[in-house]
Amino acid sequence: MTEIKIVADILKANDAIAEANARRLAEKHVRALNFISAPGAGKTTLIERTLEHFKGRARIGVIEGDVATSRDAERIQAFGVPVVQINTQGGCHLDANMVARALEALPLDELDTVFIENVGNLVCPVGYKLGEEAVVAVLSIAEGQDKPVKYPALFRRATVMVLNKLDLQPHCDVDPEAIVRDARAINPALEVVRTSCRTGEGLDEWYAWLEPWLGRKE
Amino acid sequence: MTEIKIVADILKANDAIAEANARRLAEKHVRALNFISAPGAGKTTLIERTLEHFKGRARIGVIEGDVATSRDAERIQAFGVPVVQINTQGGCHLDANMVARALEALPLDELDTVFIENVGNLVCPVGYKLGEEAVVAVLSIAEGQDKPVKYPALFRRATVMVLNKLDLQPHCDVDPEAIVRDARAINPALEVVRTSCRTGEGLDEWYAWLEPWLGRKE
Repeated sequence: MTEIKIVADILKANDAIAEANARRLAEKHVRALNFISAPGAGKTTLIERTLEHFKGRARIGVIEGDVATSRDAERIQAFGVPVVQINTQGGCHLDANMVARALEALPLDELDTVFIENVGNLVCPVGYKLGEEAVVAVLSIAEGQDKPVKYPALFRRATVMVLNKLDLQPHCDVDPEAIVRDARAINPALEVVRTSCRTGEGLDEWYAWLEPWLGRKE
Repeated sequence: MTEIKIVADILKANDAIAEANARRLAEKHVRALNFISAPGAGKTTLIERTLEHFKGRARIGVIEGDVATSRDAERIQAFGVPVVQINTQGGCHLDANMVARALEALPLDELDTVFIENVGNLVCPVGYKLGEEAVVAVLSIAEGQDKPVKYPALFRRATVMVLNKLDLQPHCDVDPEAIVRDARAINPALEVVRTSCRTGEGLDEWYAWLEPWLGRKE
């Protein structure tokens, strides 16, 4: 019997490149975080707020993944930090090879941290390691209460869940604590930060969580 | 030079099965609609409201696609309509072969319309025809203003856009008309319905749009 294991081979090849990315980042004393969420959960706005907050106090570079357009990269560029745009031209996730090329274009000697904003998608990006040390799962409360249960793989892999758009809670019939409970049933080690980028609520908690990732990696 | 065209071949094979599904549906005088959205845009709730509204007046069956769990199928089953659950076990979209098997499990002789609720994902389901006559793109206003521009393929393919969660508009800094304008710049034939499944606003307009799809196909 002939077996065709395309998916497994692709993921294995990806993992090898992701490990090379991780080695390259470590050599440069740089940490990378991989931001994953559904479309419109607020990844870009969270990154904008973060760049504003740490302006002049942290050396952050950004890799922006998008299916089409360079809108997010342009938004980030306004903060005066190094940005590389990856346009996947319809592709549903970033892979390690795309990030390897993006890392070549970033001035890693001048950075301590790289934020990688993945394509908006709760499913496909989860299987593809990029060389990051942490996965930041961003979830908008307006997406409803059942997302951890329905998309468990992301919450299993995530280091931290940013439960965002909390200001919409009174209008959404959603119990944020039920989301946290379900997510932690999948991954008991998952850290949780509750935020609203619109009102600023909880952002200090997010900045406190993030701070250890912003120093030079030894 | 050796060319490997895996993606094109997969999509070509899928299209052939989708055509077979369309023929099978036509023989049974049944129409199918493919509901596509990001996670948490409100597809299931829209289908629930619709089943409630047309109860006893339309013969609708539902195919529920999910990455994990059968929660949505259980929600739909409560309405006493035939439901088939497709659990993709991590897969990011429905394909025509999955739907072919689901159609075998539905009592097509007793139905006029099949709703197919795709996996929550704005990217991957778009390339895979299932045998449907129309694509219903559901977009939550809480996802922000830039979704048509950032995920153009869905809006190019959709028959109608249901702009949902309109009750959140005052809390979201989003102009719904800008979304409509951007979506129609991509697809001038796109029909648009503005709804809030929470308040019921606009649902009559949706039911009016849907009505012609609910009769026996001749």
